[in-house]
Amino acid sequence: MSIVVVGSIAFDDVITKQKIVRNALGGSALFFAAAASHFAPVYMIGVVGDDFPLEELDFLKRRGVNTGGIKVIKGGKTFRWAGEYEIDMNKRKTTGLELNVFEDFNPVLDNSSRNAPFVFLGNIQPELQLKVLEQVESPEFIAADTIECYLEDSPDIFREVLKKIHLLFINDSEALLFTGKNNIISAARTLLGWGPEYVLIKKGEHGSLLISDDMFFMVPAYPVENVVDPTGAGDSYAGGVLGYIAKMNSISPETIKTAVVYGGLVASFLVEGFSIDTLKAMSLADIEERMRHFRALTDF
Amino acid sequence: MSIVVVGSIAFDDVITKQKIVRNALGGSALFFAAAASHFAPVYMIGVVGDDFPLEELDFLKRRGVNTGGIKVIKGGKTFRWAGEYEIDMNKRKTTGLELNVFEDFNPVLDNSSRNAPFVFLGNIQPELQLKVLEQVESPEFIAADTIECYLEDSPDIFREVLKKIHLLFINDSEALLFTGKNNIISAARTLLGWGPEYVLIKKGEHGSLLISDDMFFMVPAYPVENVVDPTGAGDSYAGGVLGYIAKMNSISPETIKTAVVYGGLVASFLVEGFSIDTLKAMSLADIEERMRHFRALTDF
Repeated sequence: MSIVVVGSIAFDDVITKQKIVRNALGGSALFFAAAASHFAPVYMIGVVGDDFPLEELDFLKRRGVNTGGIKVIKGGKTFRWAGEYEIDMNKRKTTGLELNVFEDFNPVLDNSSRNAPFVFLGNIQPELQLKVLEQVESPEFIAADTIECYLEDSPDIFREVLKKIHLLFINDSEALLFTGKNNIISAARTLLGWGPEYVLIKKGEHGSLLISDDMFFMVPAYPVENVVDPTGAGDSYAGGVLGYIAKMNSISPETIKTAVVYGGLVASFLVEGFSIDTLKAMSLADIEERMRHFRALTDF
Repeated sequence: MSIVVVGSIAFDDVITKQKIVRNALGGSALFFAAAASHFAPVYMIGVVGDDFPLEELDFLKRRGVNTGGIKVIKGGKTFRWAGEYEIDMNKRKTTGLELNVFEDFNPVLDNSSRNAPFVFLGNIQPELQLKVLEQVESPEFIAADTIECYLEDSPDIFREVLKKIHLLFINDSEALLFTGKNNIISAARTLLGWGPEYVLIKKGEHGSLLISDDMFFMVPAYPVENVVDPTGAGDSYAGGVLGYIAKMNSISPETIKTAVVYGGLVASFLVEGFSIDTLKAMSLADIEERMRHFRALTDF
């Protein structure tokens, strides 16, 4: 079954201690689609300027991604993000941000994408996330991600989003900030009380925590010894989760648990290269192999 | 089979945001014994002043702890530690430290304890850890813990300890500091190269990582929503690990993996109360029940 993703499509400049990469393809919708398309067909909704090399997305089309929902603004410039990582790759600072065509982004879903049973709202403004939800037709399962700035700038509107979604993806630090709690589990329960059926707290290299009213599930992160570039890890994680759910066409708790494990594995590939390089190069068989290895690493 | 533990026995003053507790029983040997004795007989080797209420250890004797190796110094004062926790209980500062009788601690093992097949070296000076190892007779399995100050003050002597032990317990931050690595897995591999057969990296609420040349095992921490006092968590963790190994009388990789899970569960009880309160009140059946719950929380 298909997924519609709405989010950013960007050029990223990434500085790590090892390397500087400029004009890398990025953005939440792109990272998500590059991950999810290993599992299921994806409709991408986004906006770029006519400086964006759409042919770079051909590999996604071959994997069943419909890029028809990417609006190209004539004479416009694509969204740009720049960030620099410390030696400890968990720490980064944003060094540049140009919204460009993304500033006036008004997501419009066509007749096909609005019928997709699975919906992922990337970390765009909560107002826009709500606009997307007005357009979808009886979706089976809606998931959303966010980032700190939207929780700070539009907490009330994001609370409206929370009432309408099934699964929230959120970082541990964002969960604490947004709820005012000092314990991840309390924060997760608080978020659960605000609407979603499931809350998935992402703890980076420490794995993640999935809770619902009836379920509590913890999983470590796949061990990555050489983290090259974590940019897009959260989006590709979400892509793995939604991708697996859409592939199985099931929203049973067991499916969602397994999907969370797949999400972590997909993100573990993502961080091993710059931009979407590893997601582009790998296959579903690689993910399945890592899943077998991961089971061995965590089984007791 | 029995375990001999050498470490501190202390009075702790603990300040948390909820409560202040003074003259609480503490010290690495005591936390370890309170944990390990749920699984196997323990010989405690340590030193106290005659201000220490030995009758408080009667409950341990009833659980098979031999306290005969605790030397009482007439007119001496027991080791004292004081610490204050922040709202984020992962952060604490030591606000007071009086070595007292511990300053001249010279661990002496009697004929029974030196024949114990399992040995745990609590976080005492590496010189003293080596002195203990000179006294034990053909032990089957030796584990050691340490703390930051000994890694900073006596790195070379601790490297000697590493050559003589089977299992090292170490915090994530200490592992990074001691190896100069910026990745936990690289740090663990480096430590492994320095001697021990197994390195167990403790990540607090994020669980732990066990590695050997042939094994890699990750396990989350049991979720504790209300952390009351983390003092002694590392020692009780080690007590659970060594206790289970001694109970099973096996040092197979599978046993050690399972032991690591038990260690985490014992520590999860410890942090739910002050001092050794929860370890004193609970039974092995409680640990087994939590193990069943934990399997359900982590199974996928």
